[in-house]
Amino acid sequence: MPADIRKLDSTDAGFREQLRAVLAFEANEDEAIDRAAADILADVKARGDAAVLEYTARFDNVSAGSMSELEIRQDALHAALANLPEARRAALSVAADRVRAYHERQKEECGSDGFLYTEDDGTVLGQKVTPLDRVGIYVPGGKAAYPSSVLMNAIPAKVAGVGEIIMVVPTPGGVQNELVLAAAALAGVDRVFTIGGAQAVGALAHGTDIIPQVDKIVGPGNAYVAAAKRRVFGIVGIDMIAGPSEILVLCDGTTDPDWVAMDLFSQAEHDELAQSILVCPDADYLARVQESVDRLLETMPRQDTIRTSLQNRGAMVRVRDMNEACEIANFIAPEHLEISAENPLQWAHRIRHAGAMFLGRFSSESIGDYCAGPNHVLPTSRTARFSSPLGVYDFQKRSSVIEVSEAGAQTLGRIAAELAYGEGLQAHARSAELRIK
Amino acid sequence: MPADIRKLDSTDAGFREQLRAVLAFEANEDEAIDRAAADILADVKARGDAAVLEYTARFDNVSAGSMSELEIRQDALHAALANLPEARRAALSVAADRVRAYHERQKEECGSDGFLYTEDDGTVLGQKVTPLDRVGIYVPGGKAAYPSSVLMNAIPAKVAGVGEIIMVVPTPGGVQNELVLAAAALAGVDRVFTIGGAQAVGALAHGTDIIPQVDKIVGPGNAYVAAAKRRVFGIVGIDMIAGPSEILVLCDGTTDPDWVAMDLFSQAEHDELAQSILVCPDADYLARVQESVDRLLETMPRQDTIRTSLQNRGAMVRVRDMNEACEIANFIAPEHLEISAENPLQWAHRIRHAGAMFLGRFSSESIGDYCAGPNHVLPTSRTARFSSPLGVYDFQKRSSVIEVSEAGAQTLGRIAAELAYGEGLQAHARSAELRIK
Repeated sequence: MPADIRKLDSTDAGFREQLRAVLAFEANEDEAIDRAAADILADVKARGDAAVLEYTARFDNVSAGSMSELEIRQDALHAALANLPEARRAALSVAADRVRAYHERQKEECGSDGFLYTEDDGTVLGQKVTPLDRVGIYVPGGKAAYPSSVLMNAIPAKVAGVGEIIMVVPTPGGVQNELVLAAAALAGVDRVFTIGGAQAVGALAHGTDIIPQVDKIVGPGNAYVAAAKRRVFGIVGIDMIAGPSEILVLCDGTTDPDWVAMDLFSQAEHDELAQSILVCPDADYLARVQESVDRLLETMPRQDTIRTSLQNRGAMVRVRDMNEACEIANFIAPEHLEISAENPLQWAHRIRHAGAMFLGRFSSESIGDYCAGPNHVLPTSRTARFSSPLGVYDFQKRSSVIEVSEAGAQTLGRIAAELAYGEGLQAHARSAELRIK
Repeated sequence: MPADIRKLDSTDAGFREQLRAVLAFEANEDEAIDRAAADILADVKARGDAAVLEYTARFDNVSAGSMSELEIRQDALHAALANLPEARRAALSVAADRVRAYHERQKEECGSDGFLYTEDDGTVLGQKVTPLDRVGIYVPGGKAAYPSSVLMNAIPAKVAGVGEIIMVVPTPGGVQNELVLAAAALAGVDRVFTIGGAQAVGALAHGTDIIPQVDKIVGPGNAYVAAAKRRVFGIVGIDMIAGPSEILVLCDGTTDPDWVAMDLFSQAEHDELAQSILVCPDADYLARVQESVDRLLETMPRQDTIRTSLQNRGAMVRVRDMNEACEIANFIAPEHLEISAENPLQWAHRIRHAGAMFLGRFSSESIGDYCAGPNHVLPTSRTARFSSPLGVYDFQKRSSVIEVSEAGAQTLGRIAAELAYGEGLQAHARSAELRIK
């Protein structure tokens, strides 16, 4: 059964509206889920470990007499790594090394040392950059447990210099994912607890007798986890709440259609809400990709998910030219943008909004997902208009530094006082004036 | 009437608990306010300008036939600037110049150019940094309208290269704050609308016929504005939701007690929930500051607010030594930290968590509030543990860049495929394998 993918043409009068309809995605804000998460958070805040143990028994069917029993020790993590098949351990290890190398570069390049400068009157201004003390990483259990996500969340924190990384991962029915534990060992996670859901978010945000309070919680989770993260935002930091994954492929028609079809599949196989869009000026090429889709789809183990995703949320867009393709990319602000074209840089220069750009026909998104080096935690649902890939900067914060010299206090003090009186804040004004001779 | 400020001593057995009690602050999450904000947002999303005009008439008592009537044109902004008293215009102008200079330095130092590097096999990795297209700045109306906040929110956006800055400021009863408009002119705000509340947040987040949709909304507001910002987070970016303002003064006992007393006042005069804490190893010095407080308080126009704030939320903490003072500062993670001491750098090196550090006795917080240069929008309520001052980086975002060479696709593709099969994502694996010869 072929996949009936929606075809759009940018020269149609209603094109923009059609495109908006394709992109429309409302995260279902379920009041019942939000309420349940709030209740669990309040209970965990009040009763600590006892509450977490109860929810873990109820939701994950894992019974433990104390929270300590739910901690996986370092030797068990390292055993998981040692027990992997050789090829898999080697691949995971190379991926970890490459992710680490990229993020070390990012740290170097991002002003992580802060700065200080001295003005003529001796006043010193600057910015100090410091890592977070302690970070919590949420890793989903069951099928959606991705070892690559452990690497992508933990390694930037480690590179940033975070003091302690606490990972939580539910083990429904007591089943542990050995690849996830191996990834935790490789990434340098400090402690792992087999808890999940809103109760794990609450434990990390408020701390319990056994689980240390963290300063920020990152990592994907189900609707309860997302609701809980929204609610603890402010007590701790959180990363973005991720929507369905997306890929936008801009192609000039010169790439093997099978390659592009498989790239569309690689996004669509995540889940039925994932979105794959192909944009190309060449109608014949689009037809050839559709042929590849129909032929290759039968070979895919996850073909049902892929087909549903492509039919419900996918699109092939014929555009006037590659310039227009770039404009559309900026409008969509995709999570993943492949520019599968000759001389891709000429188009990349025109892109203002994208989580990650994959340039040239050899840059399959899947390489970026696992081992190119840059982070695979990326802004979804058009949020690349205002947010960034997860990075070292998410595990650091800045403090302004102001050392006003005695001479500086004379001139700056007068300006501050003038403005403070203008705002009716007399103590501000007097505080500055007291320093004036 | 003197201010009865709570006295703590770090050698008391219950000290940590007492300190926690002083710091405890629960933002009142009023379900009714949240519901009202949600309803207004939904209405503005559905009916656009018509809804905004109705709410503006109802809440601000400002009637207009169309949204265009509520726009303040550039010539009016510049007239407001020209009409200021000379001293005030000069002060505002110097403040704007200094804030701009600091943030330009920040842009230079923060890796705003991104980076690209080439690996041995020709694979190129990097990061592109781009400004946001359009930003909305919320400025409160009435008494809490601070022109300095206009500078602090707009200038970093401008320095970042944001294409368009839209400011909203309610004018209850039609009363405009000329100093705020003058600051908008100086800061280079592109458009100003005299609307406020949740309706203004909704208009910026969703766009209306007249008001352009923005990518991020920054700036402080009342409880309705805060609730609305929380709800549009994800559709647009937002800055932190600010709590009450705080100052922590670490003093070695060598600063004129009047200066320190006035610094505590300058925070306390903001509102009754503001928090001023002084930490010092010298009990006699703390007593002298208390004397200064009692003597100077009578001279302050806002003495009622200051007294209430100091009595309800203030504290003087006697510590063993300055090392312990620094530990306490790291625990509190204050918005503003003054280190009023000889050789303040020796202590500053020990500080890991603070929004802004004011070093030495001449660095009154008020100078930083107005004109030192660094931003006065700072993380409150212990969030300096994980967040930063508002800065140029808040108006930029990054995109990862990945250009895998043909040779790179051979080695990286195998690793990606190995891991993808491990995660049960066959299309990911095939997508990488198709590029392998």
